[in-house]
Parts: sequence; C-alpha cells; structure tokens
Amino acid sequence: MKSRSSLLSPALYEELDLRFSRLAEIMKDKCEAILIADNADLYYASGCFFRGYVYFCPPANPVYFVIRPVGLSGDRVKYIRKPEQMPEVLREMGLPLPANLGLELGMLTYNDVARLSKAFSGVQIVDATMIMRSCRMVKTPYELQMMREDGMRQCAAYGGIEKIYRSGMSDLEFQIEIERLLRLEGCLGFGRMSGNLMEINLGSVISGDNADVPTPYDFAMGGAGVDPSLPVGADGTLMKPGTTVMVDMNGCFNGYQTDMTRVWSIGSIPELALKAHECSRRILRRLEKESLPETPICTMYAIAEEEASQAGLSEYFMGHRQKAGFIGHGVGIELNEQPPITPRNTLPIVENMTLAIEPKFVIPEVGAVGVENTYVTTASGLDNITPFPEEIQELRP
Amino acid sequence: MKSRSSLLSPALYEELDLRFSRLAEIMKDKCEAILIADNADLYYASGCFFRGYVYFCPPANPVYFVIRPVGLSGDRVKYIRKPEQMPEVLREMGLPLPANLGLELGMLTYNDVARLSKAFSGVQIVDATMIMRSCRMVKTPYELQMMREDGMRQCAAYGGIEKIYRSGMSDLEFQIEIERLLRLEGCLGFGRMSGNLMEINLGSVISGDNADVPTPYDFAMGGAGVDPSLPVGADGTLMKPGTTVMVDMNGCFNGYQTDMTRVWSIGSIPELALKAHECSRRILRRLEKESLPETPICTMYAIAEEEASQAGLSEYFMGHRQKAGFIGHGVGIELNEQPPITPRNTLPIVENMTLAIEPKFVIPEVGAVGVENTYVTTASGLDNITPFPEEIQELRP
Repeated sequence: MKSRSSLLSPALYEELDLRFSRLAEIMKDKCEAILIADNADLYYASGCFFRGYVYFCPPANPVYFVIRPVGLSGDRVKYIRKPEQMPEVLREMGLPLPANLGLELGMLTYNDVARLSKAFSGVQIVDATMIMRSCRMVKTPYELQMMREDGMRQCAAYGGIEKIYRSGMSDLEFQIEIERLLRLEGCLGFGRMSGNLMEINLGSVISGDNADVPTPYDFAMGGAGVDPSLPVGADGTLMKPGTTVMVDMNGCFNGYQTDMTRVWSIGSIPELALKAHECSRRILRRLEKESLPETPICTMYAIAEEEASQAGLSEYFMGHRQKAGFIGHGVGIELNEQPPITPRNTLPIVENMTLAIEPKFVIPEVGAVGVENTYVTTASGLDNITPFPEEIQELRP
Repeated sequence: MKSRSSLLSPALYEELDLRFSRLAEIMKDKCEAILIADNADLYYASGCFFRGYVYFCPPANPVYFVIRPVGLSGDRVKYIRKPEQMPEVLREMGLPLPANLGLELGMLTYNDVARLSKAFSGVQIVDATMIMRSCRMVKTPYELQMMREDGMRQCAAYGGIEKIYRSGMSDLEFQIEIERLLRLEGCLGFGRMSGNLMEINLGSVISGDNADVPTPYDFAMGGAGVDPSLPVGADGTLMKPGTTVMVDMNGCFNGYQTDMTRVWSIGSIPELALKAHECSRRILRRLEKESLPETPICTMYAIAEEEASQAGLSEYFMGHRQKAGFIGHGVGIELNEQPPITPRNTLPIVENMTLAIEPKFVIPEVGAVGVENTYVTTASGLDNITPFPEEIQELRP
C-alpha cells in the first residue's frame, strides 16, 4: 500500500522548484498571482493529484489547498472544505491578496470561475490558460525522461501487435487485443485531453475504408465507431485483404504520454498506398532535420504540404472526405498540448518541446497510411522518442 | 460502413419530439430559448453526436448547427464554421432572437460562454445547467430500453469474471482481463462523466486494504492506483487469501450506461465482512420497496444509514478512512447524473428516474464489500436492471 503521508514526493522538490521558477518568468507582466485548478495543471504543479487548488504568487512558495484526499501533510499544504476559505487562509499566512489573479478561463467552467471570482472579490481576474499552456509546452529534463519512458513502453507494446492478429478478425477485435497488450505493458488506460471536444476510448484502430468516414472530432483520421454516441474509430468491420489497418493507440504509462501511429496491411496493397506511406516517411525525415530552434511552427506544416503536393498526393493528405487542419501537436500530460502544427502558427520552435507529428493519408478503398512519431526538439533537429520500424508490414495469421 | 447522409435517424424523430416537448415544459418561466453545447446534452438532443450546437426556442423546432462532420443533411441542419454565425442564420430562418438564452454555465468553459454571449449580444444569458440535468433525470421509454440493454450486457460480462481468475493474479491483471471481457461483450470503452473532477479508466477493481486508501476523487471507494497521476483503483498488489475484490466497472454499451458492483473473495473472509455485505443487501431490499414516488431522496440515504447504524457498522459505511457523502446517484448518458442520493437532497422521487444505489462498506485488512445495482423508479418501488447474483462467491483458480 502506498504511503500518502505527504502530498509532494521529496524526490520532486527540485523539479517543482524548476517548474515554478519557469512559471514565475512567464507570469511576469501578465499576472501577479495564479490559482491553478485544472486537473492537468494541478498534476504539473504537484507531480501527483489531489482535489483542490495551487496558489502561486511569486516570489512566495506555492500553497497547496487540498479538499481531498484526507491525510496529507506538509508545510505548504492547507486543507479547505470549499474555495471561499482560501483568501482567509492566505491572510493568516501573512500573504496579502494580489492586485490580479490568473485563472484558467479556457478550462474552468463559467460557474467555477464565477465562484472563484466572488471568493477573491476585489481582485482582478485575468486569463491564465495560455500562461499554463506555454509553461507546460517546454519540458524539463525530468519530464523528458518520463516521456522517453512512455515512448519505450509504447514501442514494446506495439512490438506485440503482429502476434495477436488472426485471420478473419474485425477491426474492433484487433483493437481490444491491442488494448490488453498496452495495459499489460503498463498503460494506465486513461490519458488526459484538453477541452471537452475530444472523446475517444483507448485510441483508434482504423481499417480500410472506415478511415474515410468523417467524424465530429478534430482528429486527423475518421472512423464511424460502433455506436452513434461515439462516432470515431473502429466500426466492427472485418479486416479485408488489400486494405491497411492504422494503429494510433494511447501511450500514457505514467501521467505523461507519447503519441505513435503505425500501419499494417492485410495481404498486399496498391502502389498508391505504398507511395503515400513513403511520402509520410519522407516528410518526417525532412522535418527531423529542418525543425530547428527559431523555425516557425507553420514552416513544418508547409514542408509537409509541399512534399505531399510534389508527390501528387494532396487529395489524400490529412484526410480525404474530411481533412484535418494540422499535421501534429504538442503532447505531454495531455494528448493535445501546445503547439498545434498548423498553417498559421508562427510560434518559433524552442528546444525541449515534445511534438507528435503525423503526416497521414487516406486512400479510398484501401485505408489510412502514414507514420506518427513523438519527438523532442533539440538544437540539431528532432529526436524521435518512439523509435519503432516504420515500414508497412503484412499481418499474417 | 455506416451511412452519414443525415444527422438524425428517422427512427428517433418521435423520440426526439418527446424529449423536446419535455424540455419545453421545464424551460417555461426559466428561459425562452436554449443553446445546447455540452457533449452529453448534444447526444440527448440528437441521438447521435456531432460538433456544434442545438438551438431550441419553443414552439419552433430545434435547429442543429453543425461544424463537423462534413456531409450531413436535413431541414433542421445548418452548417456553420464558427458560433458567431448562428444569430445571422436564425434571422435568415425567420426566427427572431430571444429575450434570454439558456447556456450550460456549469459545463461550458468561461471562455466559451464569453464567446457565445458576445455572439448573442443583447440577449440575456441564463444558466441552463439544471434545466438540462432535470430533463435528462427522468428517462423516456426509449432511454429505459437502452439502459435495460446495458444492464443485460453488463450482467453477461460479469458472468465471465469467475472464469478469468487465476491464483497469484494482481488486482491490476484481474482488471485488465475484466476490461477485455467487457469490451468483447460490446462495452464502448468510454463512458461520459459530468464535470472534470472525476478521472478514471474503465472502472475500479479494488482488492483488500487498497479499498481503504483515500482518493482525491468523489468516489465511494478508494484505491491508490498504479501511478501518482491517477490515484484511484487497482494498485498492482497481489490478491491475497482472506480478502475481497470489489468489481465496479464501466457499463456503457450504447451511449447510456448502467453502474453495477459485485464482490468476490479469495478464500474465506471474516464474519464482519460477510455481515456488512448482508447489511448492504438488506439496505437494497428495503430501498427497493420503500423508494416510492414522492419519497424525498434524502429518505433513501436515511434508510441506508439507519440500517448500517443498527448493525453497528457505521464506522465502515461508505468508506473508512475517507467517507463518501452519498449512497448513490442518477445514471444514464453520464455516470453521475441527477439526483445524487445524499442526506440533504429533498427532491422527491418521480417515476422513470434511473438510480445507481451502492451501499458499500470498507473493512480494514479485508477490503470492500457491498452491492451496487442500477434501478428504474416505478410506481411500486425500484426495478433492478442489473439482476446478477449478489452473494460473495469465492474465486477459485
């Protein structure tokens, strides 16, 4: 049984100091104090998880306001029953209320913000959504180590995929066995996503023409799903010869996650699909070299689009009937972090971002092809933390 | 491949008419129009899922504003790229803007509400969170049929649990095989939950003393989890003789879900645990008879508490080191719907609510015991839609 005698692991003290010093830097000129309430941000601010808030007004140390679980201790831990108690506790600690307070207005509900604003009445509320996202966008060495571990474990699980295929399987049956593989490898069976617009189970296994069914979600690939309440991914159809199956499953093993896609085929597939798959790999090779610090993110998108266009594959690039507007995204505690890799994102690359890059193609009647890797941005280009063979292998029963 | 030629299934036209006539009734005197944007509410309002909004200003028919997927059609379907276009489209349809507009302020982010308020400038915004929750709280015959199907399938999956046990299994290994059982039975691998405070994977398998570890989440039972980022449920320890294992796993097979808990033992367990389990069943039997229409919800809590107290089991009731403040909750599209069954909820029972009732006990050094069923409220009491043997059976390798 794990000890819960204190909130913060002493092993993380230095790590959290580093995160808060970076956060203080980003907060400068934007807000005097911040009150962290979003689940992913709470995990970032504590290295663990509790119900409550983290109040940070630099240069003072952060205060951890805990509602649940019971039994935590520590200097910086203050138990409250409700958020209205926070200002009083801060006063008792000799911490005057700030002139303005950052709240995650893009993550908290309207009613939660109204309640917190009232609790901190007289304090001006500012939007801290992008402050937290910017801070989390560039990873610390410890976070990179967590993500490298994810990548290794996701690769290990993917290594078992070929063995579980049996002739006559449906895409859904295949997915269920992959889920089990991942879970046995240590996948937590849950990955945080930002916003309530993305809904999916443990990932996406897309077979044949199902890849071309548009979904309501902002995913690169489609899929009808097996039920109208969750119209995405596997739809229960048989995996047929001459088609591909794309596996894009959850890579969350430790609170962080990697995002990785590989494609297999049933029997042989048409030349067009192989050509598009090679184009995806060529895009990744170019991006690995050319995505240097200070390069605008939109340049990455342009490179991918240029390669697809030169290969005459624009029609299939990032979807066919419905196209995604990005070729990748930041990933970390959440699957969809900053920065999105879109045509208009002029943000420059900085070192130690973690980017999932997924140039994919949908070939009608064949299926989805392309590769997705998770990378760390370095001074000399991208470092792949999901190294696993990229070629389309044929599944054999 | 499923057809996506229209948004609404014609088979659901009458059903949706019924839902909207009920909604119109609840909206009376509260708001003139409502704009539905929350995922669970969108599913309720359409019987399917899309990215967009449903605008409803009775007595006019609802308007379905769709952003994604592409390719839907229908009289009531209007494509938009962004929410700012809605007022103009309504004007073009000859629908004047309302004096006030209900938004789900308890579900949407502050920034989303600010954006929608600006789009509908001049229109007073009112909170429609409880309007939608109240409407969804009482199920239609069609919804009850969906939930009865969930119940049957969840029972079928639970029927396979004994066969998968092997001596020397960890709680996590046991959970992984149960997840596979559920998925093969048709469980979608995803269940909607209201609010961002509840985070869990496909459910909870709690073995032995792990039941007594407090969690940050508002769940009846605890569990350390296997990682600090998701501190709930199975913690990877061996299932030991003399302890119980409580299985409380996802029952979402079709967009609705049932919630059901059963307990098994490894070897024989102490008398105290058996006594508490029987107390849980006695509570359910009393509630099945006494939870009649017009009974206040808090009476259900009082009955449960009284039985636990008379049996001398208050110390273990609904948790030991950390206690939950409820003995059950509404369930349907989301796992945590109205009404919560708490000591202070004076709302009267009405027919066709669907309630998950879970009087549970945590016995230190033994584990969690108790039964959870999902019920439909009827004129003559509760109708159990998760009928499955309730006795603690011994797992045999």
